[in-house]
Amino acid sequence: MKKWLLHTFLACWACHFASAEPYAIVVHGGAGADPAQMEPEEIEGVKARIQSVLQQGLSDLKAGRSALRVVEEAVRSLEDDPWFNAGQGAALNSEGEAELDAAIMDGSNLRCGAVADVRRTRNPISLARWVMEKTPHVLLVGPGADRFAQQSGLEMVEPEYFITERARRALRKKQGTVGCVALDIRGHLAAATSTGGLTNKRPGRVGDSPIIGAGTFADDRSCAVSCTGVGEEFIRHQVAGQISQRIRLTHVTLPESVRQTFADGLPDDVGGVIAVNRKGEWVMHFNTPGMSRGAADSAGHFEVAIGK
Amino acid sequence: MKKWLLHTFLACWACHFASAEPYAIVVHGGAGADPAQMEPEEIEGVKARIQSVLQQGLSDLKAGRSALRVVEEAVRSLEDDPWFNAGQGAALNSEGEAELDAAIMDGSNLRCGAVADVRRTRNPISLARWVMEKTPHVLLVGPGADRFAQQSGLEMVEPEYFITERARRALRKKQGTVGCVALDIRGHLAAATSTGGLTNKRPGRVGDSPIIGAGTFADDRSCAVSCTGVGEEFIRHQVAGQISQRIRLTHVTLPESVRQTFADGLPDDVGGVIAVNRKGEWVMHFNTPGMSRGAADSAGHFEVAIGK
Repeated sequence: MKKWLLHTFLACWACHFASAEPYAIVVHGGAGADPAQMEPEEIEGVKARIQSVLQQGLSDLKAGRSALRVVEEAVRSLEDDPWFNAGQGAALNSEGEAELDAAIMDGSNLRCGAVADVRRTRNPISLARWVMEKTPHVLLVGPGADRFAQQSGLEMVEPEYFITERARRALRKKQGTVGCVALDIRGHLAAATSTGGLTNKRPGRVGDSPIIGAGTFADDRSCAVSCTGVGEEFIRHQVAGQISQRIRLTHVTLPESVRQTFADGLPDDVGGVIAVNRKGEWVMHFNTPGMSRGAADSAGHFEVAIGK
Repeated sequence: MKKWLLHTFLACWACHFASAEPYAIVVHGGAGADPAQMEPEEIEGVKARIQSVLQQGLSDLKAGRSALRVVEEAVRSLEDDPWFNAGQGAALNSEGEAELDAAIMDGSNLRCGAVADVRRTRNPISLARWVMEKTPHVLLVGPGADRFAQQSGLEMVEPEYFITERARRALRKKQGTVGCVALDIRGHLAAATSTGGLTNKRPGRVGDSPIIGAGTFADDRSCAVSCTGVGEEFIRHQVAGQISQRIRLTHVTLPESVRQTFADGLPDDVGGVIAVNRKGEWVMHFNTPGMSRGAADSAGHFEVAIGK
């Protein structure tokens, strides 16, 4: 067989094989909001955005894009959407400023990047990826992180860009952290989370979102996880990391690991998680009245919901 | 029996009972330094300070002080000592500034506090404890953390206070993060870690020390851990949390859990850990040429070492 012919044959075979592999995307737009107390306009806005993010992600995964790229793109879209507490529309701290946190992790090699207390970088999740790709570090915080974004040519904005009238009025306690986990057709997992943190938080407070192992974790050997809720509890109980460790160390299923982790000392009404594994199994679990969320996969499942 | 007599009897009995309970303290002054490349003056200085911290801690534990208080005091002493890369004498970032990180955790209730990118608080470990005790938060970073220290009445210093001639010359790559874990006579565990981070780091870079579950963790149900080394790897592999989880989930011994965690993908020459459990068993493990360290316990063990 001529060499080019062999290559072509192998490529086609790989392509055929790949297209049979499962893929999945799961998204959250924050736990804590009770749909019974949301305006209809908000419910529709949130659900429509999650649906569109899922559709885009599903189509990208089907086309062979990496889970890493898909979770970054999904979270970027949600950062740019003022409905969610991440990027534009973020919750404001006690001095009326937006301070943004984000993290991303590649389950195929445990590489990860995170930023906290960012104030001028339009898309913190892309800065987190930049930290992962372009530095030997995992976590950059504060003015040093914004400066790195600027030096790297990422899009910078004035601090006012993030502040919406809605966040300023703080109509409700915003807990709408956003996150995404995905499985790609090569069998790799990735997770991404982005947030403005707690409304009226003390300046400099950092929650679980940018903490690898607390609010964000991905490991091809177990699962990819993104959390939302009372960050301090998710740090203390290392929720994302614990879900992964239980699978690796005790070989429980993904849903069982999530259940055990929540039962292991996490308070009631604390928040929720989304997770996916290499088989394409996914979980959306929360112990709050609601969690904005959606999941879609290669088996044809597609759902978007807020309440229980 | 008269009431005061009963009280006295009970107190004495408690005292007698308590003194039979094991207690232990383990300290590190950083992994990475090769004793073969240290000046004799430095070796003596480091060992003498660790010895004195152990003696003080042991005596405090014997007197019934809490593990939490003992680890805070031990780390404060090391922060105030310019030999170590924490507090005064910290490594400087690429702009010649000291940026300090610290975390503390109480194993009896999983409460924890941490600070990162602090520049004006003399003792970051005490600020971490203050975050734990006085706020609903776990992690404060940057100017917001320093401002909180000032509002709380903690001792503030000029940024120059931290900078020693030795750190400025950066005679060697300082990796002398400091940490302490302890078991008190009530059976409670605590862990504390403090660092200036990597020499010449990018401003805003945060390593594993202030990340609960990465460089610092304590849980009465498993062990207390403090890490030192290449922070990014300790975050990625959630070293402190993983050591705890392996004990809780698979019931291995503390030394075996440390061994398995290091064998589970951690690179060579990456750093070390100290750990203690409720039985008073302790571990000092590292895969670097040396780790400044010491351990002392109620069974009469007392050792201080740097090399293998």
